[in-house]
Amino acid sequence: MFEVIARNGAARAGILHTDHGDVPTPVFMPVGTQGSVKALAQRDLREADAHIILGNTYHLYLRPGADVLERFGGLHAFMSWDRAILTDSGGYQVFSLSELRRIEDKGVTFKSHLDGSTHEFTPEQVVAIQRSIGSDIIMVLDECTPYPCDREYAGTSLELTTRWAERSREELLRTKPLYGHRQLQFGIVQGSVFEDLRQKSARALRSIGFDGYAIGGLAVGEPLEEMYRIVSSVEPALPADKPRYLMGVGTPENLVEAVARGIDMFDCVLPTRNGRNGQVFTSMGTLNLRNASYKEDKRPIDERCLCHVCTTYTRAYLRHLFTSKEVLALNLASLHNVTFYLTLMREMRASILESRFPAWKEETLGRLATGQTLTP
Amino acid sequence: MFEVIARNGAARAGILHTDHGDVPTPVFMPVGTQGSVKALAQRDLREADAHIILGNTYHLYLRPGADVLERFGGLHAFMSWDRAILTDSGGYQVFSLSELRRIEDKGVTFKSHLDGSTHEFTPEQVVAIQRSIGSDIIMVLDECTPYPCDREYAGTSLELTTRWAERSREELLRTKPLYGHRQLQFGIVQGSVFEDLRQKSARALRSIGFDGYAIGGLAVGEPLEEMYRIVSSVEPALPADKPRYLMGVGTPENLVEAVARGIDMFDCVLPTRNGRNGQVFTSMGTLNLRNASYKEDKRPIDERCLCHVCTTYTRAYLRHLFTSKEVLALNLASLHNVTFYLTLMREMRASILESRFPAWKEETLGRLATGQTLTP
Repeated sequence: MFEVIARNGAARAGILHTDHGDVPTPVFMPVGTQGSVKALAQRDLREADAHIILGNTYHLYLRPGADVLERFGGLHAFMSWDRAILTDSGGYQVFSLSELRRIEDKGVTFKSHLDGSTHEFTPEQVVAIQRSIGSDIIMVLDECTPYPCDREYAGTSLELTTRWAERSREELLRTKPLYGHRQLQFGIVQGSVFEDLRQKSARALRSIGFDGYAIGGLAVGEPLEEMYRIVSSVEPALPADKPRYLMGVGTPENLVEAVARGIDMFDCVLPTRNGRNGQVFTSMGTLNLRNASYKEDKRPIDERCLCHVCTTYTRAYLRHLFTSKEVLALNLASLHNVTFYLTLMREMRASILESRFPAWKEETLGRLATGQTLTP
Repeated sequence: MFEVIARNGAARAGILHTDHGDVPTPVFMPVGTQGSVKALAQRDLREADAHIILGNTYHLYLRPGADVLERFGGLHAFMSWDRAILTDSGGYQVFSLSELRRIEDKGVTFKSHLDGSTHEFTPEQVVAIQRSIGSDIIMVLDECTPYPCDREYAGTSLELTTRWAERSREELLRTKPLYGHRQLQFGIVQGSVFEDLRQKSARALRSIGFDGYAIGGLAVGEPLEEMYRIVSSVEPALPADKPRYLMGVGTPENLVEAVARGIDMFDCVLPTRNGRNGQVFTSMGTLNLRNASYKEDKRPIDERCLCHVCTTYTRAYLRHLFTSKEVLALNLASLHNVTFYLTLMREMRASILESRFPAWKEETLGRLATGQTLTP
């Protein structure tokens, strides 16, 4: 289900086979929390050549609800998306969005951020909801530790996360997909910024045995060097023949650096969220379309970009849409940004396949640094 | 520049020739006030087969400004739309949106609704701004009387509007287009609900001589019968060989009834504004996608509709997007609604060409009345 087809240093190019199509890696997965990648139509995602998108278990469980999704034959049919879907377990949202009531060995009790109603997530139930969703990749329920986090809390939390991972795997093996297509399951390495805890977590997950391994609990406010240090220390502890997914990361620079450290998969709200605020990514760094300096700028967002937005509209028009609060601005900036991310990943993959990743990396990071920089 | 190619009773099918393509009439013009038809990309409009859209002189004058538009070679280039554009004169917006300072024979002084700055619109200047915009059809500056409006005010206002129309025509004939393509100019019949004033207005405009004639000051709150009565009374007073444009109208039913009374052109914010609120038009009447009854509805918005939205998404998914406040909802509902309006006009035109408009009208109005109805 996963093949590494080329290596260049620690960087890997591969193919993740799913029943909703092959996913070339390294891959960036646009975030479609509630069954919609914000401001983009499904055909926009196809046009940007997205092979896999994210959904969120917490959000989809609350709305439209697992029952509705089951009646539609799962999220793919409900949202009319026939390529791959990975669902985040919702653990992060339970801890960040909802009013958390109680966390115990059995699971977490929480109040919905929508209507205050009380719900419980157990590792087993989170697998069951993802069976209803029908995602191609199921993530286990975990506790995502905040930053900073003391060693003792990180250690105790990790034990819980590990027990939950075992139960999640058992539940997956005990049950069957509802819609006939295969569902893979990824474990999530936690342990905050403590290398020994991270190693322990990786070993434990390996011994349980998952279809892929995510690194969670990063990009939560720690310095960049800390993030890269943890990625570098975890990577050798993960099986070489399984995909590695760095959750919630990141800027274009972060993606390049993480691929250089052996990561295959990413997701992040940056291209869509920042796009909706007028910030667009270019091969020379970022720019904000609201800026008055673009008032009469006849250039596209990025002269190197071949997306529909860059081949059709000028910065001046896009600025006009943002200053005039036109909804179209959100769609166009998001479409460009997602295309930019996916193109970056495609170019990166090609450079690995052709064993020129180090030179590509140096040139790309150099170019990205010429414009404004974006704090992650 | 305008040909009537078929008649069926008072209803006409024609072609309006512009330097940005032929516009088959009767035609509905989607409203793109600020250089964007709200929530739709220009390629969405092409997909819906829009041949002409509206822009607004007041809004475009304030933002991005006539100077910026000139530097881009006009609105077509600025917004990347190579089909026809009609620009409303902005009179209506001056009277409704801005803080009006003074109306006198020379023109109107007003404060911008954006920043409170003071501006003056004269009939000549409004022509000049539309030269900068480069619209294919220029509307004259007029005073749009409110409803109700007493006879005396309507009469005095009409005299002003008529003098402004003369000056507008002189200014058009005195000046040249800036970008090489031809710009037509329409006069606007006013006179509130008073048939004699309307006749007087129509006669005065005819004697000035315009490329087309609009009926303004309707759909401003008067009963439907009043609107139809005025349209019927004005129509015989307008030249048979020029296009007639009923401004700001209306519901699907209104369009059918007005075409039956000899109108060729329409514009209205209903399909886009109502779409953004979740109200969609179908061949059986309107429905609101926020309604809980669509929670598990696997049908498209309209089973008779072949638009991208109806061939891709269910009511349940669209309802989910609206209840989840996803931006995509705005685009999809607007795309369906605009397609619905344009399809209605195309079917209506075909029925006139085939001399079966009366039967088509009866059948269509019958179908539209089977569902919920929409107050105009």
